[in-house]
Amino acid sequence: MSRSVVAAMTAYTLELRDAEIKLNQNESPFDFPRELKQQVLARMAERPWNLYPDFESTALRVAVAKAYGLAPENILVGNGSNELLAATIGAFVGPGTPVVFPRPTFALYEKLVTIAGGLPIAIDFDPDSGFLPLDEMLSAIREYDNAVAIVCSPNNPTGGVLPRGGLEALLESGAMLLLDRAYGDFDSEPSPLGEGGPKGRVRGADFSPPKLVTFRTFSKAWGLAALRIGWLVSTAENCREIRKVKLPYSLNVISEAIASLALENREFHDANVARIIAERERVIAAMREIPQITVFPTQANFVTFRTRKPLFDALWSRGVLVRDISSYPRLQSCLRVSIGTPEQNSAFLAALKEVV
Amino acid sequence: MSRSVVAAMTAYTLELRDAEIKLNQNESPFDFPRELKQQVLARMAERPWNLYPDFESTALRVAVAKAYGLAPENILVGNGSNELLAATIGAFVGPGTPVVFPRPTFALYEKLVTIAGGLPIAIDFDPDSGFLPLDEMLSAIREYDNAVAIVCSPNNPTGGVLPRGGLEALLESGAMLLLDRAYGDFDSEPSPLGEGGPKGRVRGADFSPPKLVTFRTFSKAWGLAALRIGWLVSTAENCREIRKVKLPYSLNVISEAIASLALENREFHDANVARIIAERERVIAAMREIPQITVFPTQANFVTFRTRKPLFDALWSRGVLVRDISSYPRLQSCLRVSIGTPEQNSAFLAALKEVV
Repeated sequence: MSRSVVAAMTAYTLELRDAEIKLNQNESPFDFPRELKQQVLARMAERPWNLYPDFESTALRVAVAKAYGLAPENILVGNGSNELLAATIGAFVGPGTPVVFPRPTFALYEKLVTIAGGLPIAIDFDPDSGFLPLDEMLSAIREYDNAVAIVCSPNNPTGGVLPRGGLEALLESGAMLLLDRAYGDFDSEPSPLGEGGPKGRVRGADFSPPKLVTFRTFSKAWGLAALRIGWLVSTAENCREIRKVKLPYSLNVISEAIASLALENREFHDANVARIIAERERVIAAMREIPQITVFPTQANFVTFRTRKPLFDALWSRGVLVRDISSYPRLQSCLRVSIGTPEQNSAFLAALKEVV
Repeated sequence: MSRSVVAAMTAYTLELRDAEIKLNQNESPFDFPRELKQQVLARMAERPWNLYPDFESTALRVAVAKAYGLAPENILVGNGSNELLAATIGAFVGPGTPVVFPRPTFALYEKLVTIAGGLPIAIDFDPDSGFLPLDEMLSAIREYDNAVAIVCSPNNPTGGVLPRGGLEALLESGAMLLLDRAYGDFDSEPSPLGEGGPKGRVRGADFSPPKLVTFRTFSKAWGLAALRIGWLVSTAENCREIRKVKLPYSLNVISEAIASLALENREFHDANVARIIAERERVIAAMREIPQITVFPTQANFVTFRTRKPLFDALWSRGVLVRDISSYPRLQSCLRVSIGTPEQNSAFLAALKEVV
């Protein structure tokens, strides 16, 4: 018998369906450049596979630090940002720790908090405004001592962001802030603290609020979802504590080498992000012309919208797979569509106009 | 500030040293076959890297099931067996859960139990006999309701195993048993329940004790430590519960493809295991001729021994890096050496004879 909190949980699942046009997982529509693939794979054939990776993934931590103007001791890398989120929650959330987060948001946060025995404090909000519920989060943080806050901005699956001044207010609130910037590269307005923006900037080594942990991923803007690579930035002290919880050797050598090579070739990343943002604006404008749906403001690489009738299956039968998020709180009748290639987006828009 | 249990922990560390002959991490001395490397890497260049892995790693679970005569629903795969151990502890160990394990053993178990808020009950034993402390573990299990037991057999870092009948006794004890068979392939006597042995056999789909979770890895006998791939076998119900705690998509597509290809080519695995076992017996016989050291019986791909004076640095200065385990409980003045190639082992033996 598993623990009662685990027995009561449902598994994180994803219905598997094939489709010609797959826009259901917020993936980049652009594959890693072919010549870079071949370059890194040729190198990997020469490397021994029988020996463990470097204990601290030093090569990639140094490469991230160089690319983003940080110091290696402020960085941890891992097997997707999910692993680093889980380790950070393990380091800062224990039995009874209050954890404040907006809802709807990425479902994994609440699961990890529950497994850690923490007290999930979900702040329900309506996604229509495009903003996360800052004031309500601050009130909840004030109600508890030593709260932890988790914010995904731009938020999955709604696309909204913290309002201007929100990050500063959260940093001043006294809460330990776990800031998931998985979609930060697509945020057309970099935060005033500089940890996001279309070029994936982060503030330099001089910037390290003592209670902030920021999570980044190679899965979205870098187009490397298949390789499972994430990183976090925080103070050296926080990194040391999180590393106690994180499993050693968690990043395999091939993914590590691929991420390092990607960072040396960031032109493709910047070009892809610019293309995705431009396509997002085109898709949103076209969707706003369709009176039967309500489009929520988004700064991510996806668009969330409310429909008057169920459309998921109708779209799928026309070859377009989107994400059915209608079972999330406050997202009744909502769908989420990832921004794909121009051709994929046009096919989605055509199918949508047909089925509404 | 991290949680008090985390703040009180020390990080799992490994002193990094270079050496001509690296025998400190229980790695296989044999790299993955070159033609297989090239075959799988060529396939990986054609695969999209921008799309997430299969949600359930179905291809590899099916391949493992086929190779070992199991059913896919009895198998989970992950980013090294460490990840699966952490998820299993997360599923079965909560605040106050008593967890019985021999000591010295793999240090990660106690760390994971502590992070989960469990009550670690370490059963100290002397490694001289080559056997784990079965009776003392059974007594401790009887003292508590709903204990969890963790056993690594062959045990890291001592090399000893459960005595004959030990697995059956533990299964009858009522404890949830987490059995780490990372070194099971090197155990020259397969257990009566058939979950180990030199050919890496496991008992078939007909064998599924309700309270047993067995962990396996591709890091040791398969020579794939760089790729971080592990698996577990248990009842379908236990797998479902553990999957709730395990992170989704935790195995990247390249490691998954490599493991699947390895399973289709297990001749190299079987040949390497036979070579390592033969070398182990040669190394042990030679070490037993050296009166200044005490060699502990081992069924793993390493040998642990006690010395009369510190030898770690003296060996290292002769180009041989072994593992200094003298700070482990009951392992004062002990070193652990992995079985390498015949040449590496001979170099180790020559250096050892010089320095004692």
